[in-house]
Amino acid sequence: MSLRIATAGLDLMAEALRAQGAAVTAVDWRPPGGGDPDAVATLTAAYGDARIDEANARAVERLQAARPAIVGAGRADELIPGLEGRLVLHAGPPVEWERMCAPQRNAVCGAIVLEGWADSLEEAAPMVARGDVRIAPAHSLNAAGAMCGVISPSMAVWAARDEVGGGVGYSPFCDGPGEAFWLGVGSPEAIRRQRIMAEEIAPGFAAALRAEGPIDAFALCAQGIAMGDDCHMRHQATTMLLLRQTLPAMAEHAPAAVLPTARMLAGNGHFALTVTIAAARAALMGIQGTPASSVVVFISRNGTDAAVQLAGLPDRWFTTPAPLVGDPLYRPGFSDADAAPDIGDSALVECCGLGAAASAASPGVAAFLGGGLQDAVERTRQMEDICLSRSERLRIPTLDGEGTPLGVDARACADLGSTPLINTGILHRVDGGQIGAGIARTPLEPIRDGLAALVEHLGPA
Amino acid sequence: MSLRIATAGLDLMAEALRAQGAAVTAVDWRPPGGGDPDAVATLTAAYGDARIDEANARAVERLQAARPAIVGAGRADELIPGLEGRLVLHAGPPVEWERMCAPQRNAVCGAIVLEGWADSLEEAAPMVARGDVRIAPAHSLNAAGAMCGVISPSMAVWAARDEVGGGVGYSPFCDGPGEAFWLGVGSPEAIRRQRIMAEEIAPGFAAALRAEGPIDAFALCAQGIAMGDDCHMRHQATTMLLLRQTLPAMAEHAPAAVLPTARMLAGNGHFALTVTIAAARAALMGIQGTPASSVVVFISRNGTDAAVQLAGLPDRWFTTPAPLVGDPLYRPGFSDADAAPDIGDSALVECCGLGAAASAASPGVAAFLGGGLQDAVERTRQMEDICLSRSERLRIPTLDGEGTPLGVDARACADLGSTPLINTGILHRVDGGQIGAGIARTPLEPIRDGLAALVEHLGPA
Repeated sequence: MSLRIATAGLDLMAEALRAQGAAVTAVDWRPPGGGDPDAVATLTAAYGDARIDEANARAVERLQAARPAIVGAGRADELIPGLEGRLVLHAGPPVEWERMCAPQRNAVCGAIVLEGWADSLEEAAPMVARGDVRIAPAHSLNAAGAMCGVISPSMAVWAARDEVGGGVGYSPFCDGPGEAFWLGVGSPEAIRRQRIMAEEIAPGFAAALRAEGPIDAFALCAQGIAMGDDCHMRHQATTMLLLRQTLPAMAEHAPAAVLPTARMLAGNGHFALTVTIAAARAALMGIQGTPASSVVVFISRNGTDAAVQLAGLPDRWFTTPAPLVGDPLYRPGFSDADAAPDIGDSALVECCGLGAAASAASPGVAAFLGGGLQDAVERTRQMEDICLSRSERLRIPTLDGEGTPLGVDARACADLGSTPLINTGILHRVDGGQIGAGIARTPLEPIRDGLAALVEHLGPA
Repeated sequence: MSLRIATAGLDLMAEALRAQGAAVTAVDWRPPGGGDPDAVATLTAAYGDARIDEANARAVERLQAARPAIVGAGRADELIPGLEGRLVLHAGPPVEWERMCAPQRNAVCGAIVLEGWADSLEEAAPMVARGDVRIAPAHSLNAAGAMCGVISPSMAVWAARDEVGGGVGYSPFCDGPGEAFWLGVGSPEAIRRQRIMAEEIAPGFAAALRAEGPIDAFALCAQGIAMGDDCHMRHQATTMLLLRQTLPAMAEHAPAAVLPTARMLAGNGHFALTVTIAAARAALMGIQGTPASSVVVFISRNGTDAAVQLAGLPDRWFTTPAPLVGDPLYRPGFSDADAAPDIGDSALVECCGLGAAASAASPGVAAFLGGGLQDAVERTRQMEDICLSRSERLRIPTLDGEGTPLGVDARACADLGSTPLINTGILHRVDGGQIGAGIARTPLEPIRDGLAALVEHLGPA
């Protein structure tokens, strides 16, 4: 019987042994928390605490049981409780007007003109600075938006409700490519598109919902994932499934909505993204405030700051400066110098088994980013490393029906130094508009900070 | 240096050597043509004939270049030249009324009632027996149909044209699950559905085609394959892509068609199957009559006979009794005893890089049949073994963009004893209606016969 050697960590030992002709298995081991003493202390406390284990098990069970459904489509001020007066919501954690990134300001100003509170973008900006128009995070009213994520009272939004967990969620209709609020453009064309969505398109979906009842949003996602969507970067199939399901009732009860809806969806493969976001927000609200849970419930960026919330510390944002989006693919003529930092509430879908978790289902997204199926599978495996379970509903055909990783554990993130990847667009830092796409990695720091705060909050076990 | 041994064919030698401790690589070799002397003689002639090689290269080049587009939707007698008088077309090679399988007879009789030539199915059957109504293969008028594939003058059909290769193709609208002509049911409900398709739905697509021009059918298939369709057994994505593309123009120019179309498509994930068949028929017509080519151009079954045509021997059917569908999954209460043999023209899509060739793109189909991604990949690899090239347009995301195998070579089929697999439905042998699904294998015999006839036709090289 020959000698069998395993080494852990640095390659030096393995290489030295191999040089002497020995067969060596090198194990990729790294010290927990990157070897940082505070991180190790936090992890030691967190992994030794049965209260966290039990809370996380409860949180995951509730996420599995969630059945978020779209229950409404219409004006934000009619559907979102608390959206009153001259208030504009935005993606990300709270941010002062002066620190808000330019694309998000553009969209806020566009919304102010849309509402008729100002006649021009130039007139709009000082109104916010003066406090004549208030701004607040969408999350503060249980809403969430993709990219700039701006919502003003007359805009079209989706309303979701999870009857099982009791959560609600709202998200603005996705206004498509080019000149659009979500992409940080507040131009007349972007404003016109918002009016069409609110006045012509949303009533069609509202009529379909009245006639046929709520739409099981994760059922659409499950089918979409079976058709190559990751339900974050790609919603091509899910968008068409939404259309196929609602069209009969829309054609019967609101026929005038069919043409504008058909035109919008023919050119907007991301349309169902915010259906998914509203539903995911409702599902995640069901685990917000699970005492002692270290599950990451929201990942949120506003182009200035990036932030996370843990289930066990509801409504507390742990924040760090928003990074630039990594591995960028820019449109010709653009570079890092033109890019706004990472932005949007949409990464909450990664906390629901969607997006990066579903990467393996979407080799198309991997190809767009320059990779292949194995890269896509690898990204799902990375999420697996930091997740507590697997979705029972969202299954990946390319992995023979394995569920997507579900329940991001801040402990595992802090331990492995690994956080959810986010496929996302890149906006121009001044003008807005999409100038590229890439992969953002959720910053580790706020997750570590959140975990430390949770351990402190719980006190000794 | 140690002895290295390779064995070919039977395992006996390899096993004997392994029993003595030798390292053996066993190569899976089988005699060509199963060792049949006639088959070997044919293969020797066919593989030694540069005329066949050159012809096949031409045929594949033309298949690659084909751009079949849907150019019309409407009544069969207005779109299909030669469909005149009391004529009903059917799937498969020519068959006498007395030998026609019961499901196909049901559909023919349903069509006769639909046309008003008879008042009942009972009255209809003797009209065909007497010759008051003629029957003919759809292929005789450049048409092709799924399953029973019946076409009568007032039925809705798709018209395809390949401007590059000059081919045309026609296929009836797919009438969905349950009581439907294509499934061998000629009931009042099936007849009602045909009327809705011809009078209410086809005009909507016709209006969209007039407004927006032809639809590039293989572009839809390419996108559908990127979304989990194999474009034979599964057309879920392709059907929705067709809807998304045509809906704006339909809503604008033929709004009355939207509701019936939306209702039909919401419950009929196979709807685009016959769009694909019409287009594939047009593409394949472009290689029909390529002198000396051993490329299989059509695979066609009528529930009584199964047949193939080779590109080098146009309009000559090589025929054998239709087999039962293999690996059957029956609905509860049904068995082989209830099953009609394999039926339909749809397997011509396998000659175009679709269906079995695209299996690897469709783990969902593999899962339905009880397998996983590796089974799906294996089926694409089997097609690769008998194909001459790879599609430049139809690319498989799970294989990092590899093209689907294209150009089935009768020589390779005869050599390897391997023929295209066909995912297909199973009809009740008396009543019609779908009682299951399974995998049909194209019979080898007519392919061998065709190849022998081609070699004889060509004479010595």
